Amino acid sequence: MQLTDYIRTIEDFPKKGISYKDITPLLMDPKASAFAVSELIKGLEDKTVDKVIGIESRGFLFGMLLAKALGVGFIPIRKPGKLPSVTISQSYDLEYGSDTIEIHEDSIQKGDRILLHDDLLATGGTASAACKLIEKLGGELVHINFVIELDFLEGRKLLPKAKVNSLLHY
Amino acid sequence: MQLTDYIRTIEDFPKKGISYKDITPLLMDPKASAFAVSELIKGLEDKTVDKVIGIESRGFLFGMLLAKALGVGFIPIRKPGKLPSVTISQSYDLEYGSDTIEIHEDSIQKGDRILLHDDLLATGGTASAACKLIEKLGGELVHINFVIELDFLEGRKLLPKAKVNSLLHY
Repeated sequence: MQLTDYIRTIEDFPKKGISYKDITPLLMDPKASAFAVSELIKGLEDKTVDKVIGIESRGFLFGMLLAKALGVGFIPIRKPGKLPSVTISQSYDLEYGSDTIEIHEDSIQKGDRILLHDDLLATGGTASAACKLIEKLGGELVHINFVIELDFLEGRKLLPKAKVNSLLHY
Repeated sequence: MQLTDYIRTIEDFPKKGISYKDITPLLMDPKASAFAVSELIKGLEDKTVDKVIGIESRGFLFGMLLAKALGVGFIPIRKPGKLPSVTISQSYDLEYGSDTIEIHEDSIQKGDRILLHDDLLATGGTASAACKLIEKLGGELVHINFVIELDFLEGRKLLPKAKVNSLLHY
């Protein structure tokens, strides 16, 4: 199965000059989605992961399926002000300005082995901030995966490279 | 299994006087999550549904699991400007002001039997707008389900009541 057949390129979105990679055709196809999940968890089936973390909001999509496939719990990382209990937060730089993500303080137990997931690795700012949140709470980052990686943005440089796996590269 | 054991009430969130129902403990427990999914799809297993639609962003969580359990595709309804291809949109009133949601125009084929999902039914504004989007695209709304329904807000009144099912009522 060629997963690239289920990724649609939309030119000039969200702004001129950007070729946006749209995963909605993949979501629409249950067989292709199941195949993507099986590829994303390869090598992780033997209880090496205690929890899956997905980043709001597209990281929730396959994040939940990964947690289900591995038989473990799911933890959301969200935008500021969305998580209702006590949180810790991490800011990161954008091209212009900065952004912040949050996680529930009681979501990770010390030593929990974590799989971090998002749909897209672009500049790596969000994923790198997520790694810092996991570290702050004493989690052990086992693996980071993405459906799509935009290689030319070199986001992998901000992450522990050996742990990063992306299904598709552009 | 008592699913209420996995819902945490946070007082005064997001503002004073509101008792927020937090589903993150449910997400953290794979057995409870699987039980919630099996309850949400009861009676729908016999190919009565062609596609599951989940509303951004918490509707993505169980929405994807429902699609997986039913072996059908998933369609996201998102906040404005997030979906990259051609969309149609629907606005709805809030306590102060209004909000808008969008769906890809090519996501539903005429006659598709749709299961609409969100985590929470409150005032019903968002879900009602989602029903209008489905209708506009020629989809047949078969069922609407929620993890939690806040009965006192009477959101069900805005929806085709006979099709609505919520796992937990407060």
